[in-house]
Amino acid sequence: MREDYVHGYSEREAIRLVDQAETLSPLLHYDTSFPEGSLVLEAGCGVGAQTIHLARNSPQAEITSVDISKPSLTHAKALMGREGISNVQFQTADIMELPFADETFDHVFICFVLEHLPDPVGALKSLKRVLKSEGSITVIEGDHGSCYFHPETKEAINAWQCMIKAQKELNCNPLMGRELYPLLSEAGFKEVKIDPRVVYVDSSKGELVDGFIKKTIIAMVEGVKDQAIGSGLITPETWDKGIQDLHMTAEPSGTFFYNFFKGTAKK
Amino acid sequence: MREDYVHGYSEREAIRLVDQAETLSPLLHYDTSFPEGSLVLEAGCGVGAQTIHLARNSPQAEITSVDISKPSLTHAKALMGREGISNVQFQTADIMELPFADETFDHVFICFVLEHLPDPVGALKSLKRVLKSEGSITVIEGDHGSCYFHPETKEAINAWQCMIKAQKELNCNPLMGRELYPLLSEAGFKEVKIDPRVVYVDSSKGELVDGFIKKTIIAMVEGVKDQAIGSGLITPETWDKGIQDLHMTAEPSGTFFYNFFKGTAKK
Repeated sequence: MREDYVHGYSEREAIRLVDQAETLSPLLHYDTSFPEGSLVLEAGCGVGAQTIHLARNSPQAEITSVDISKPSLTHAKALMGREGISNVQFQTADIMELPFADETFDHVFICFVLEHLPDPVGALKSLKRVLKSEGSITVIEGDHGSCYFHPETKEAINAWQCMIKAQKELNCNPLMGRELYPLLSEAGFKEVKIDPRVVYVDSSKGELVDGFIKKTIIAMVEGVKDQAIGSGLITPETWDKGIQDLHMTAEPSGTFFYNFFKGTAKK
Repeated sequence: MREDYVHGYSEREAIRLVDQAETLSPLLHYDTSFPEGSLVLEAGCGVGAQTIHLARNSPQAEITSVDISKPSLTHAKALMGREGISNVQFQTADIMELPFADETFDHVFICFVLEHLPDPVGALKSLKRVLKSEGSITVIEGDHGSCYFHPETKEAINAWQCMIKAQKELNCNPLMGRELYPLLSEAGFKEVKIDPRVVYVDSSKGELVDGFIKKTIIAMVEGVKDQAIGSGLITPETWDKGIQDLHMTAEPSGTFFYNFFKGTAKK
């Protein structure tokens, strides 16, 4: 298990991940559905935040969800139990050394994982190995360089940039979304299609103001507070002002924009 | 006529604007169509780049297109003649002092204009005055802060930022897109709806690689070269490297992202 997962493994973070998935599910997952009997691998399921939606949208598929973190899998199993989901099996596994035979799965699903891996092309090749011929892959990533907002203050940008820098310090790629096309191509997938999924929020969209700006974005930024201040990326005063200013984007005159990328391809 | 229009009034710029409108028309204008006999005001038509598409999508509407620049209107009239478009009348006018009675028009259309005006809310209020009760407005703007690309080099970002700074030097607002919702609300419009229109380009989209990255974006950046170097925003060497690097985003491993905003509202 990697101890340095940028968002941490706290209970609060697990709640943030599930909140986020709930808010974003209609945008990201509505068109991902696998037929009865399909063998689907979810790679890097974490606490099961996306697994709920994957399983609900494909209730007749047989899903195997793997993660390198045992505590996350324990959390995920408990979550499936509470949600009454029974078509998912969990297994500890490293994406780079998957314990499955070649050409085992019809589909591979991987969401918000590549950004955290040091060798994303290697990971995609490993996933391709266990995919059946003509099997398909679905990859979802954000891109923290896609984010902008109104009003835009220096301190709010600084706080936001701290998250990007914190991820880079841990050898993650916070700008992964824009790279999905070249990475999938380089890994040898064909028929690569990238579909940007835009989250645009203004005050006419009350649910997103709360669920996205506050509970997803600001909560995610706040998660790197200790690391950002501790490593001298930002002063405590600038941090506080930045977080306060980010909240202004959730006011009636504020707007917020973020872009996810959903990629699909075939082996 | 404003002499300081950031993109200039050159013949090359007129060609860029028409090229750009041609590439972006399906994205921006496909759903803007006004019924037979509608009285439509296009505010700030410039050289007629958007007018062609507005007129073609509403062939039975009576369009009045105004601009503050007589040379631009001469260009626009000639363009309509060449394109065989006959449902547009042109007139010189300042958006802030429109020579029309209250409640004259059924619709107002304004595209890539607000960003250049020192008082956008005042302009929207002026347009609202000439709109009939329950009439509607369509506003389209870009947002230069929405742009990002892969690969991302320091010099490419610098060159791009020069365009943002050049616009700000001329009191324009290169980040207008994100402000459409609060501006339309502040001007007193109701039922404000903002729809982000994403341009995402990778090498599977050959037409956009050429029409958008090269002919729209890089051509637009190149348009501020003299101003940027002349006012010391960037060195000639960094500029050349930046432009060269922006071209890398049009290579097979490159990607490019930009976001337009289309707003509609009622009086």
